[in-house]
Amino acid sequence: MTPIRKFEKPLGMRDSFPLINEKKERIRDIGRQFFQTRGFDFIKTPTVEYYETVGKASAIADSSLFKLVDRQGETLVLRPDMTTPIVRVATSKLLKEQIPLRLAYFANVFRAQENEGGRPAEFEQMGVELIGDSSVFADAEMIITASDFFQELGIGEYHLTVGHAGLLQSILTQLTQSKEQVKELRTLLVEKNMVGFEEAVKSYGSAKEEEHRFIEFIEHASNVPTIESLRPFIDESDKQQVNMFTYLSDLSVLLENAGLSKLVTYDLTLTSEMSYYTGMLFEVFASGSGFAIGNGGRYDGLLHEFNCNVGATGFGLRVDRLLEVMTTSTAREPHALLFFDEANYLKAVNAANEKRKQGIRTTIQYVNGVEDRQAYQENFTEVVWLTEGDGNNE
Amino acid sequence: MTPIRKFEKPLGMRDSFPLINEKKERIRDIGRQFFQTRGFDFIKTPTVEYYETVGKASAIADSSLFKLVDRQGETLVLRPDMTTPIVRVATSKLLKEQIPLRLAYFANVFRAQENEGGRPAEFEQMGVELIGDSSVFADAEMIITASDFFQELGIGEYHLTVGHAGLLQSILTQLTQSKEQVKELRTLLVEKNMVGFEEAVKSYGSAKEEEHRFIEFIEHASNVPTIESLRPFIDESDKQQVNMFTYLSDLSVLLENAGLSKLVTYDLTLTSEMSYYTGMLFEVFASGSGFAIGNGGRYDGLLHEFNCNVGATGFGLRVDRLLEVMTTSTAREPHALLFFDEANYLKAVNAANEKRKQGIRTTIQYVNGVEDRQAYQENFTEVVWLTEGDGNNE
Repeated sequence: MTPIRKFEKPLGMRDSFPLINEKKERIRDIGRQFFQTRGFDFIKTPTVEYYETVGKASAIADSSLFKLVDRQGETLVLRPDMTTPIVRVATSKLLKEQIPLRLAYFANVFRAQENEGGRPAEFEQMGVELIGDSSVFADAEMIITASDFFQELGIGEYHLTVGHAGLLQSILTQLTQSKEQVKELRTLLVEKNMVGFEEAVKSYGSAKEEEHRFIEFIEHASNVPTIESLRPFIDESDKQQVNMFTYLSDLSVLLENAGLSKLVTYDLTLTSEMSYYTGMLFEVFASGSGFAIGNGGRYDGLLHEFNCNVGATGFGLRVDRLLEVMTTSTAREPHALLFFDEANYLKAVNAANEKRKQGIRTTIQYVNGVEDRQAYQENFTEVVWLTEGDGNNE
Repeated sequence: MTPIRKFEKPLGMRDSFPLINEKKERIRDIGRQFFQTRGFDFIKTPTVEYYETVGKASAIADSSLFKLVDRQGETLVLRPDMTTPIVRVATSKLLKEQIPLRLAYFANVFRAQENEGGRPAEFEQMGVELIGDSSVFADAEMIITASDFFQELGIGEYHLTVGHAGLLQSILTQLTQSKEQVKELRTLLVEKNMVGFEEAVKSYGSAKEEEHRFIEFIEHASNVPTIESLRPFIDESDKQQVNMFTYLSDLSVLLENAGLSKLVTYDLTLTSEMSYYTGMLFEVFASGSGFAIGNGGRYDGLLHEFNCNVGATGFGLRVDRLLEVMTTSTAREPHALLFFDEANYLKAVNAANEKRKQGIRTTIQYVNGVEDRQAYQENFTEVVWLTEGDGNNE
């Protein structure tokens, strides 16, 4: 190993400089206001959780977890997602009465990276969870809330893709011969590797007819504008499949009624690395980012793991990717600098307080505390000299 | 070890429920506005840093660090303070031009706990750093900014204690026979264990006269209203001591001019667990908390560790302790609930949007999604039934 130099950060870790940080802060402000107005309550959970509880339940690959051992010898993880910690809190503390909980969060989550490939090992998520309501209205609320939030942020071009984790699982199971094949195909779908998917299907040596159905599925069951175009892929003799499809149809009616028809497409091949999704799931994309900016879905199964028999749905957005797709003003904010010398210290303090009261950002600075005054001044939109010496003439 | 139950959190880790979280959010809002208006720029740094860089330099005891090993085999730490990461950023990226930097942060820091004694293992700090200005005006700005922020938060009763790390070190060195004794006495002062201090001094077997000077020091060099009362403890033949005392005197004049006389006391026995303080240091107390709510000081030495020969000063406040001393309103925020059934879904969506536009927090909820409707309603200040069935009469 090469020695670590003083200024280095761990792999995948980033500093947020003032300009970027300020833009993120604006997103947080808007989000906080927006989700609160819709009845969501913000909570915070610890950065560190037990591996045995949140770590194992989180559905993130073990090799992507940051693990540590505490002074008591227990294995801990840096939280890899926020849904699992919120489920921990909800099932242990908040769900005593069987009533729906609407919770929201801003939180950093952690995924260990193998190499410096540009993927962050720590990133900020904002999201909401609706726990304790199994109705299709709860799922509709999640998708509509996500869409409305994009409107609120002023993101012009975005769209939502809606699928169903249970339905995909059922279709894949029908078309394959083993659980391993289902798992392999799901992984390829998570990676959106459609070429790999077709190749894998061909390698299974199924009957030509089966193979054809599969290729049809992968080519035509994604990104369709109406749910009806997906009916051919449903086995009408399979009651469970029919029920799940009916659920998706009901959901699509609610989304249509809410005016989202033009923003939503349906995709039966949609899946997620978060293996706890059991029902409806969705992703949000926007022009300006090749990655999904957010995703969500129904995860009743995760609640059962925490011994709680209620439904839950939610979504999370990546703040860094939101930032990429938002057009933000680059106008320079007014910022006054008051240079002072010993004799004018009080004058400077008073003048600064006056300006601040007027809402003007104001820095006071002892003139002899600065070596390169010319360079320093360039950071301000207004410079006032309260000095009696040479400085005055600079 | 007893098995970990599903709902448990690691030792010293806490969840923040909505009510507390909202109050903290208010402090963050005020703080962000306040520090920005004074010219500070907010930055964020990673939660995880290298042990070799930030971990070792942070001045937090090794046993209090959360350590982990990354996939590359390097030892990492959860940041135990924010000053060291900010110094890393400032010296590597921001300080290319020799100009003062005013940086601010909100960040969680981590200290491993031995047992569940009520001390949090993760807590939020907010603070500012002024890097690149060695003048006494920079130190005055820190103390005045801290004081003004307490005013801004509406905290009525608070006070600041100002000392000098270098001066204390010099006095302790003069009065003792070894570095070990200095270290022992400093540790007792950090713990504010004055009885232990006197006992330790007596155990050194010094001449009666020395011992007397020591007891005088510990009993009369703390919490005095003016700097002049501390002059008897300065060795006038020691040029360095005289210079440091003069510095403190100059500082006290600036604080007096800024109207802080009644809020500040001076304390030569003041020290900090953060061993990187080299010059002026201070603590802020408020009625309602037995602990310091914040502390700060000059830490030029830490900059030198990062190969940067400039001065730096700053302070940090604990958000949890600020919360303790703030009187906050307990008035219930208006929050409307719209119960709907299938037939009235759209009506509910539209009514909710209307209310939200008026700034009223509004939750829409499918009535059959809720088991205990009575309990649920109690969370709201207004309940509207948009239903046609039984629900209407409940």
